[in-house]
Amino acid sequence: MERTIAVELGERSYEVHIAPGSLAGVGTALAELHGVTAAVIVADSTVASIYGAPLLDSLRTAGIEAASIQFPAGEQNKNLATCGGLFDELFAVEPPVDRDTMVVALGGGVAGDVAGFVAATALRGLRWVQCPTTLLADVDASVGGKTAVDHPKGKNLIGAFHQPRGVFVDVDTLRTLGRAELGNGLAECVKHAVIRDVVLLEFLEDHAREVLACDADVMVDLIARNVEIKASVVSADEREAGERAHLNFGHTIGHAIEARGGYRAIAHGQAVSLGMAAACRMAVRRGLIEADAAGEVEHVLGLFDLPVRTEGLDADEVWQIMQHDKKARGGQVRMVLPVVLGQVTVFDDITQEMVADAVAYIQS
Amino acid sequence: MERTIAVELGERSYEVHIAPGSLAGVGTALAELHGVTAAVIVADSTVASIYGAPLLDSLRTAGIEAASIQFPAGEQNKNLATCGGLFDELFAVEPPVDRDTMVVALGGGVAGDVAGFVAATALRGLRWVQCPTTLLADVDASVGGKTAVDHPKGKNLIGAFHQPRGVFVDVDTLRTLGRAELGNGLAECVKHAVIRDVVLLEFLEDHAREVLACDADVMVDLIARNVEIKASVVSADEREAGERAHLNFGHTIGHAIEARGGYRAIAHGQAVSLGMAAACRMAVRRGLIEADAAGEVEHVLGLFDLPVRTEGLDADEVWQIMQHDKKARGGQVRMVLPVVLGQVTVFDDITQEMVADAVAYIQS
Repeated sequence: MERTIAVELGERSYEVHIAPGSLAGVGTALAELHGVTAAVIVADSTVASIYGAPLLDSLRTAGIEAASIQFPAGEQNKNLATCGGLFDELFAVEPPVDRDTMVVALGGGVAGDVAGFVAATALRGLRWVQCPTTLLADVDASVGGKTAVDHPKGKNLIGAFHQPRGVFVDVDTLRTLGRAELGNGLAECVKHAVIRDVVLLEFLEDHAREVLACDADVMVDLIARNVEIKASVVSADEREAGERAHLNFGHTIGHAIEARGGYRAIAHGQAVSLGMAAACRMAVRRGLIEADAAGEVEHVLGLFDLPVRTEGLDADEVWQIMQHDKKARGGQVRMVLPVVLGQVTVFDDITQEMVADAVAYIQS
Repeated sequence: MERTIAVELGERSYEVHIAPGSLAGVGTALAELHGVTAAVIVADSTVASIYGAPLLDSLRTAGIEAASIQFPAGEQNKNLATCGGLFDELFAVEPPVDRDTMVVALGGGVAGDVAGFVAATALRGLRWVQCPTTLLADVDASVGGKTAVDHPKGKNLIGAFHQPRGVFVDVDTLRTLGRAELGNGLAECVKHAVIRDVVLLEFLEDHAREVLACDADVMVDLIARNVEIKASVVSADEREAGERAHLNFGHTIGHAIEARGGYRAIAHGQAVSLGMAAACRMAVRRGLIEADAAGEVEHVLGLFDLPVRTEGLDADEVWQIMQHDKKARGGQVRMVLPVVLGQVTVFDDITQEMVADAVAYIQS
């Protein structure tokens, strides 16, 4: 089975194609839908070694003049120096890239962020498509057009909004993911369910086993629904003025937990999972949702081995990091809390006491 | 006297303010028109030493929290490494920059290109304004939103379209320019006259002495008219699909002459001047314009010490470079030729013989 979801962004609209084995069809799709005659694949060294050759074949078989350039795998290489190396490779391609060259980002979130930024800035903007190979990239990075690299002062500080022309999700690539990497994507799926769609929460609960086994049909459905949700949020608010803030559910305290460990002590999905548990607790304490509803969210997270309890956190430290994040955004401490499962509101009256209670709760 | 020209680009529209002494009013304008409360000046080391302190004063007097960051002066520093250094400085500013911070580009074309690109990519896009300090930047870079840095493989290969929120041209800054630098701007003024406005050509002829003396009133009028012309072209074609190509008049053969010397043997304005003389010759040979009209263009260029004759060019080499430029753009050798003074058309039937004749002519 396969699904195609439209991301509606006016003249920047595009489609996300989701199917098993779709990587093999990328060449034909680019040649037929986008009239591509030249393309450059950008991938990290690890992903390139697995999927680089078949993708290159797909492009060349479709008559596209295709080259492949790489950067060293790893989150720590998501920086401007890596872009510099990629520009060197990109501008050495023969025949030379021109404004019609299509950049094909192949890999997880880092590859999408880096390749997308290179595409956004090479020749003042080349067209690009994404071929995500992780569940997190499928359900999160594939929609929104955010591209960026990190700077020692913070994550994603250097970047651009640059919408892709299309996304090709090949669910077969998910089978090679480790459980922690799968969890990074599943945490975002639970997030989407809580902010927009209680039916998705039930789907996750009912199909947990197939999801963890990366059953192709179930993954196509799961990814399609998540892409729909993220697309609807981004369509309403491409540049993050308002509704897009809902996507921060679980990420406020989650980010503080992650930042505290220098982004290495804990996987992103685990931090977001704890952040969602903390936010749900806060919603219960404010009388927004019942304890049972919060328990339901925790139960689904648990099905995917995502943590809802931890230890070693210091509530003061978490608050300090939240204050720092607030300054970096030039605003209030704001948190996204569920008002019912499937619907959230942004609250800007968050106090240190509320945070301390929530942090104590996830350590109880 | 002062003039304000609107650059019409839909929601990205902005105004170019032109007046003597306008740098002193930038702070008030930013605070009142744009609600700016925090700003970072980006300038090269040379320009910062002349105009950095007064501009910083202007911002701070207006109640704006202002910082100033610098990069080493010189065209050779218009690269990604310089941007990396500027990001380090930008993200070290206290209090930290946020999405409301205004970037203020101060200086010539390099400063605008580099600061604009940093603004385009810091936090995925900060607002920016330009305070150009050269005639070339006043009449050319101040309109169009092109930002970029060079790569060893070519000029402006890494960049973004990012429109400024406003431009403040202080004609007093022109008095410190050398004659060659002034010539770089005047060559573009002659170009604008040939492609759009024969009255401007007459203005340049009639006021050559005041222009060379940088008389404030004359420069305000001159810059205003040139900004109007460039704005009308860019408004019609923000992303360079069509009409914007007219701005390449004089730049095809001119670029080949410049590239041949590795961009150091000859000033940009001198190369464009020779390129315009060659293009006019080509137009005469095709019967598009009279020899007298071409002579008029050459006469005005001569008034500003811009060359219309040279030596040491090899027509084959010029043709080869044009072929290479053509490939880099993935298209035909195209040239913009006048069909009457004040109007041009793009021709794509340019032959090696025509180029050889034009090159021979400017060496006659």
